[in-house]
Amino acid sequence: MLNPTLVEQLRQIVGAAHYRDDREALVTHSYDGTPMLQALPDGVVYPANTEQVAAIMKLLAAHRVPVITRGSGSNLCGGTVPLQGGVVMVTHRMNRMLEIDLENLTATVQPGMITAEFISHVESLGLFYPPDPSSMRISTIGGNIAECSGGLRGLKYGTTKDYVLGLEAVLANGEIIRTGGKLMKDVAGYDLTKLLVGSEGTLAIVTEATLKLVPPPKTKKTMLAMYRDLYGAARTVSKIIESRIIPATLEFMDNPTIRVVDDFAKLGLPHDMEAILLIEQDGEPETVERDIALIRSICEAESADRIEVAADREEAEKLLTARRSAFTALARLRPTTILEDATVPRSKIADMVLRINEIAKKHNVAIATFGHAGDGNLHPTATTDARDPEEIHRVEQAFEDIFEAAIALGGTITGEHGVGVVKAPYLEWKVGAAGMEIMRGIKQAFDPDNLLNPGKVFAKETRKRVVIDRG
Amino acid sequence: MLNPTLVEQLRQIVGAAHYRDDREALVTHSYDGTPMLQALPDGVVYPANTEQVAAIMKLLAAHRVPVITRGSGSNLCGGTVPLQGGVVMVTHRMNRMLEIDLENLTATVQPGMITAEFISHVESLGLFYPPDPSSMRISTIGGNIAECSGGLRGLKYGTTKDYVLGLEAVLANGEIIRTGGKLMKDVAGYDLTKLLVGSEGTLAIVTEATLKLVPPPKTKKTMLAMYRDLYGAARTVSKIIESRIIPATLEFMDNPTIRVVDDFAKLGLPHDMEAILLIEQDGEPETVERDIALIRSICEAESADRIEVAADREEAEKLLTARRSAFTALARLRPTTILEDATVPRSKIADMVLRINEIAKKHNVAIATFGHAGDGNLHPTATTDARDPEEIHRVEQAFEDIFEAAIALGGTITGEHGVGVVKAPYLEWKVGAAGMEIMRGIKQAFDPDNLLNPGKVFAKETRKRVVIDRG
Repeated sequence: MLNPTLVEQLRQIVGAAHYRDDREALVTHSYDGTPMLQALPDGVVYPANTEQVAAIMKLLAAHRVPVITRGSGSNLCGGTVPLQGGVVMVTHRMNRMLEIDLENLTATVQPGMITAEFISHVESLGLFYPPDPSSMRISTIGGNIAECSGGLRGLKYGTTKDYVLGLEAVLANGEIIRTGGKLMKDVAGYDLTKLLVGSEGTLAIVTEATLKLVPPPKTKKTMLAMYRDLYGAARTVSKIIESRIIPATLEFMDNPTIRVVDDFAKLGLPHDMEAILLIEQDGEPETVERDIALIRSICEAESADRIEVAADREEAEKLLTARRSAFTALARLRPTTILEDATVPRSKIADMVLRINEIAKKHNVAIATFGHAGDGNLHPTATTDARDPEEIHRVEQAFEDIFEAAIALGGTITGEHGVGVVKAPYLEWKVGAAGMEIMRGIKQAFDPDNLLNPGKVFAKETRKRVVIDRG
Repeated sequence: MLNPTLVEQLRQIVGAAHYRDDREALVTHSYDGTPMLQALPDGVVYPANTEQVAAIMKLLAAHRVPVITRGSGSNLCGGTVPLQGGVVMVTHRMNRMLEIDLENLTATVQPGMITAEFISHVESLGLFYPPDPSSMRISTIGGNIAECSGGLRGLKYGTTKDYVLGLEAVLANGEIIRTGGKLMKDVAGYDLTKLLVGSEGTLAIVTEATLKLVPPPKTKKTMLAMYRDLYGAARTVSKIIESRIIPATLEFMDNPTIRVVDDFAKLGLPHDMEAILLIEQDGEPETVERDIALIRSICEAESADRIEVAADREEAEKLLTARRSAFTALARLRPTTILEDATVPRSKIADMVLRINEIAKKHNVAIATFGHAGDGNLHPTATTDARDPEEIHRVEQAFEDIFEAAIALGGTITGEHGVGVVKAPYLEWKVGAAGMEIMRGIKQAFDPDNLLNPGKVFAKETRKRVVIDRG
């Protein structure tokens, strides 16, 4: 429960209609896209501008009340669940495109703008903003910045981090900072812009972002390659890159995913394939034709059993459906779907998929794997039932093994979903005790009273790393 | 003077030959590429590997002795001058290429490797590492990482930051951390990799770097466009980008630079031009031809007085000579050459060049400007004489005005040279008091005893920003 005077002051800052603490508002903001996590906030506030955010922060800091900044809550790491209560600050009213600068190829936006709306506005002007997280139809630009969202185009174009040039942000004490600018080069001090991207709302509240836009590719071509041999698919991925081709998209689905997707979307996919690669190249027409022809010959050399190249956009959309429906198809199987994003160097994809399958078998859980093969960012996805604690325990054990396997292969516990609360116990496995200590020091520098999204990134307890019987 | 026991221990760590405190070694490491700055260290140490660096740091931390990490000392911000004495740690013995991974397109190198040697090795394998600072023939990869070096290809390909995927670094207390990896996506905690890049040796000592390589462009074409109208040149820059073309290189020289370069290199450049643009495009042959034709038509529409497109690599080299000899030609004029790198949004280049000319006139100093027009990164260069304190004072006043003008135009005090000691008094102008406070907190988290390159980035005194008579 918040102090009634504080509540009154919050209402004065944002207007009575924009602070809520009714049951419906609290429950709606007690969870996000992450399964099996819920905690009620004490209030929900909807600021209209930076000044309101700053005033709110000054007030909450004086009362030592935690604040959880939230876009659409589509994250998958529990990043916006108010674990320690406090106020959820929703950015939806700050959803305007402030400027598109055609001379400098930048866009300046408020954090609450929906990613897909931003992208389609940018595209209507003949420009291109590559980060395309699967949640883009509901996610916000601010949420993408908080999580450093990736997507299907990450291999060729990078992730959100590569497109954030400057930020305005409110600190825990209510002060406003500005980092970077419409500048392709800026080395004035430590790079606070890149530090804030991916900091999951634990360091500052982003209130405005200047994003880099790029010229759009002129054309795009899409193909599928299907393999009975998992290693053939993995070798194809490496061979494409080794041939000095960076495709726009290079996605992977394993056999369990193929079967579920086909049952769901009736695409006529062969159920006996161990892997399907979805490959897209974009750019100048001549380059695209040449690259796709070369990729096709690599697929053939690596014994792909079937190759389909889309003749037009309509056929391409059909091929894309296979990959796009993966999560939805898997989510139909059981009541609870847990999607992870263990990531490895791209040369280790086949090893990782095999390890995932062994681990699933060992713990007797159902895990299907799909993801971004080109950048080694896999999504092992468990279909389970949150009402069965014994099974959930086995799923958790399996993911623990998966994180460990990813790190053993030179990878990481999260490629694009973030640490949040779900992966906090494993973060030390990746960054080490000294790395954790440095990160705690950075948190301290920004937020000495631990008011910004407390309980995220830093776990109360780190999981012990045990020697696991590889059986 | 260092404690003799400490010196003995340093000798034991690296071997007697690899610690020096003779006069020659101290003087050689008392200055770097920056004019008018000198301070003697107490000793110079040449570690052979990470373990030695860690042991040295444990020892120096116990004795509270500052350490200044140094590659070739080619930086231009006083970044490696041992202002507070201490030990200069030279990375030259740690100069090996540890691995080129063709499957993941990464290179893992030690920090002391010379940039140009790294690049030519990479190119001999048919790959490409774009960052190309002008100092690349002497600079080291570690120095490039410390300063986040840019170069002529920054516009299209980005700077050092965009190519560092992972680091091994030794902390002030001698602990070793590893950040990132051979991973295109990694959001496990705060991005320490990008934070260390450009941190100028003030946060940690980089002992190993994993760098991203990319497929090389198939071909390249070079052209010069000359203008009597400065704004015509500036509009050309903006129009090229607005036309959705990102050239590989888009360089600028103003009239004073053109004249000096021509006197030096006898290129037959017309002395009455206000600006020359050097433009290069690379990529697939068809794309390059199309882009260069379109760029040519933009130059013509913006009233370029003369356009030269190189027919072959030999002609291209001749055109490149004009830009490449700018610094050398200017350096011949007077005993002291001060090269700055005020940076503005690219749409503001003409405004900035005119402001620089006004400022030079006001303070009665000679400043020629050239630089990377495509990314707004200008190099106003003062030719002066360090032996004349009155003139040097006027030059300093002029640069103070230039930094202020850059910030007023939405720019920054340094695009690629770093803050070091030279620009430390101005850093607060760009990042604000709250930004400085956060940066101090970050420094504290990494280096609580202020042993790593002390006196850099953070100035003892910040210059007051005064209202200047624009006369």
